[in-house]
Amino acid sequence: MDEAAKKQALRLFTYGLYAVTAREGDVIAAMTVNWATQVSFAPPMIAVSMERESRTREIIMRTGHFVLCIYAADQREVAGLLGRHSAKVPDKCVSVAWEPGSATGCPVIFGTLGALECRVANTIEAGDSVLVIAEVIEAHAARDGEPLTMQAAGFKHAG
Amino acid sequence: MDEAAKKQALRLFTYGLYAVTAREGDVIAAMTVNWATQVSFAPPMIAVSMERESRTREIIMRTGHFVLCIYAADQREVAGLLGRHSAKVPDKCVSVAWEPGSATGCPVIFGTLGALECRVANTIEAGDSVLVIAEVIEAHAARDGEPLTMQAAGFKHAG
Repeated sequence: MDEAAKKQALRLFTYGLYAVTAREGDVIAAMTVNWATQVSFAPPMIAVSMERESRTREIIMRTGHFVLCIYAADQREVAGLLGRHSAKVPDKCVSVAWEPGSATGCPVIFGTLGALECRVANTIEAGDSVLVIAEVIEAHAARDGEPLTMQAAGFKHAG
Repeated sequence: MDEAAKKQALRLFTYGLYAVTAREGDVIAAMTVNWATQVSFAPPMIAVSMERESRTREIIMRTGHFVLCIYAADQREVAGLLGRHSAKVPDKCVSVAWEPGSATGCPVIFGTLGALECRVANTIEAGDSVLVIAEVIEAHAARDGEPLTMQAAGFKHAG
């Protein structure tokens, strides 16, 4: 394997940035992800690769639900905040404004362009991560605007 | 479900454009995809959602291998060509220049920025499509340049 070519090629993938949120009673959790894609039109489904150690993922595994919010181009700061690991920043969600999604109760973050409320359909281990495949059961369009991209944010999470 | 919001939110996902190629003896097949993402760092793995009826996918299922090539920004034409269904354009690969990947023999398309040779690790049905999860076993970096994006190409395959 040409390790340098592998890293270079994988970093050429074009990614957006999204918040994945979960809720279990009074406990909420959220994280920033980029490894996400639609995977089916009918029914509408998405797949999100999540770190094994993620606290958000643990809640999603127990509750079977999450919300994916699409960051707007002007939300680099919150994307960076929620991209930090909860082990290092346990209260990272405190300053984030949200309201509960109508279908799942999971946080829909203010300022994002839109949100997809999702029900987990399948999970599959993929190397050091877990791929969560979910059906979109409700959706919200919040405001017009351009989505935040990995390239515009200057984040790196590929390679 | 708010169908309009669902479509609007899913169309805010940021996608690149990629060629997925397969080979079975003298037969080659290729298609353009956008529902693709890295899913693991170690080992390096990607996931690609493919249409059920795809001829390329059928070959991949039999051979267990494919190559994913990253289109360059100036490759809108070949991306569009390989995005057409082989049932409608059976000879769509004829005019595409390629060389066999060293690890899999699958086509590495000329002019692309880089390519990942992949071995299928898992497949999972997801609604109307099939999600193929694969380990990257070899990689090639071909040239510098910006990748082609869905937005720049003006293609729509989400929602």
